[in-house]
Amino acid sequence: MVKKVAELVQGIGEGKEGALARALTLVENRGSGYRELLDEIFPLITPCPIWGLTGAPGVGKSTITNFLAGELVEKGEKIAIIAVDPTSPFSGGALLGDRVRMMDLAGKPGVFIRSMASRGALGGLSPAIMDAIALFQAFQVDRIIVETVGVGQSETDIVALADSVTVVMMPGTGDDVQTIKAGLLEIGDIFAVNKADLEGAETLAGLLQSMISSRTEEGQSHQPPVLKMIASQGNQLEQLLQEFFHHQEYLNRGELKEKKERMRGEMALKMHLQARFQDLFLGPLLGSEEWEQALKSITGREKSPAYWAEKMIPGRD
Amino acid sequence: MVKKVAELVQGIGEGKEGALARALTLVENRGSGYRELLDEIFPLITPCPIWGLTGAPGVGKSTITNFLAGELVEKGEKIAIIAVDPTSPFSGGALLGDRVRMMDLAGKPGVFIRSMASRGALGGLSPAIMDAIALFQAFQVDRIIVETVGVGQSETDIVALADSVTVVMMPGTGDDVQTIKAGLLEIGDIFAVNKADLEGAETLAGLLQSMISSRTEEGQSHQPPVLKMIASQGNQLEQLLQEFFHHQEYLNRGELKEKKERMRGEMALKMHLQARFQDLFLGPLLGSEEWEQALKSITGREKSPAYWAEKMIPGRD
Repeated sequence: MVKKVAELVQGIGEGKEGALARALTLVENRGSGYRELLDEIFPLITPCPIWGLTGAPGVGKSTITNFLAGELVEKGEKIAIIAVDPTSPFSGGALLGDRVRMMDLAGKPGVFIRSMASRGALGGLSPAIMDAIALFQAFQVDRIIVETVGVGQSETDIVALADSVTVVMMPGTGDDVQTIKAGLLEIGDIFAVNKADLEGAETLAGLLQSMISSRTEEGQSHQPPVLKMIASQGNQLEQLLQEFFHHQEYLNRGELKEKKERMRGEMALKMHLQARFQDLFLGPLLGSEEWEQALKSITGREKSPAYWAEKMIPGRD
Repeated sequence: MVKKVAELVQGIGEGKEGALARALTLVENRGSGYRELLDEIFPLITPCPIWGLTGAPGVGKSTITNFLAGELVEKGEKIAIIAVDPTSPFSGGALLGDRVRMMDLAGKPGVFIRSMASRGALGGLSPAIMDAIALFQAFQVDRIIVETVGVGQSETDIVALADSVTVVMMPGTGDDVQTIKAGLLEIGDIFAVNKADLEGAETLAGLLQSMISSRTEEGQSHQPPVLKMIASQGNQLEQLLQEFFHHQEYLNRGELKEKKERMRGEMALKMHLQARFQDLFLGPLLGSEEWEQALKSITGREKSPAYWAEKMIPGRD
């Protein structure tokens, strides 16, 4: 084992924050030894509940996260917050990396905040997010809160993998039905209509409620609650925390928790297979002579992308 | 060549709509022979301008698309509209597939509308979207309009590949600066502040304007215009159409058009390489005995996802 990796593994085992931070960076950059690191910390992992918060920009997710994390730390918990930011299609970096909105918590003992880009090199989910969860669990945090910005897009995949997901909405953002239809109804275990003092809050909450009722199957014991809140005034935040606990208990009673574990395992495995593809096939091709030749041929309308892909990865078909 | 594929290629060459529709379905489902089809229609392709429209749900994209397509058809053009819908993380299908909002145009001669899911099997961009563009261009359409729902997520990749992109926004959707920062400023060639009669429209337009000015480099000849409009009342729609033409002329003057062509070629090639990976490696693994064994080992905390990925795709590293 590389010395650097061994040191990081030891540091994480001893609860050293510096080692955790360096390990997160190594994993996010897919730096040399990252796979070995993930393999080595694997036995250290203690599973913990993962809570998800998702919603469009500006609906108040960060205010809510701030409150939840603050309360949990008060109870003596060690909390990790993974703030997943949209990635610019060009720069490749997370654009909201500064995250001024997390200022309240930054530096507070017991809270570990990490901003991460939502996408990997291939445009899908960033595999580093799953890996960060593993690192935090090896670091023995008691709870992980994943906050994502998204409206039904691939970013919601991540929160879908959380044990309990709160979808945060607000009134007045245009075509609410469309937003709701765009996949959010399916992933929410709890719904929060924030800024409930704005016009349209009642309508939105009513709409959500009726859509939830119509799709809740008979005999299904958990019907997602709809909370109207004004997070900036502290209104109903405690209630949301209770709903999270409530859902957690519900999970613990049934087989759903196991299902979630399996889904996460499957997702992590897929992500790592993707990374293998990137490292072994795509990486070496990009910018190679063959790549340039293929692009010339494609833009010159000689041979199609389908032709070149078969030539580059000859197959068994 | 399979008979079915040969018939589709011939039909597309002869401008038969039925053949186009069947070819689009074949490509979207990655049905047998789809790669051969794409290879065969490749020489038929006549490049045409691709216009993109993006923005959050409910900002009025469809109203705008309706107008643009209607005007262009009046001028005698053959128009393709690709409406990219968010994909549900669970069902895998496009949830807004019904698209009542495109009713005005459906069935109008000269307009070809296709709703497509935004994501492929692996969670990244759906490769079928690039392929649909190729099919439409082989069908000799004069212009393609791609409409996507998205806020800085992977869906915006698709519009980023369009020749000219209009970002549609509206006031009052919460934290506007955050939305703007989330990658949209970088992909917009034109900005439309729709529902300009709502409160906050002036502020939003002013903010956009100042952000654009501050990042426009000296000597750069195209500074994205910011249009305030009320699309539902027809207000400023004609102006937007002119801005699209304007940007197209700007592109034709410089080397940017070539750059865009190259980017599209590169994207298509990557998508097809991904598809090869899916077909040759991931597909056969999913649900296999080895897959189940790996999942058991991962959820049982015996061996890590990184370990299994290396075992499943043994590498040169």
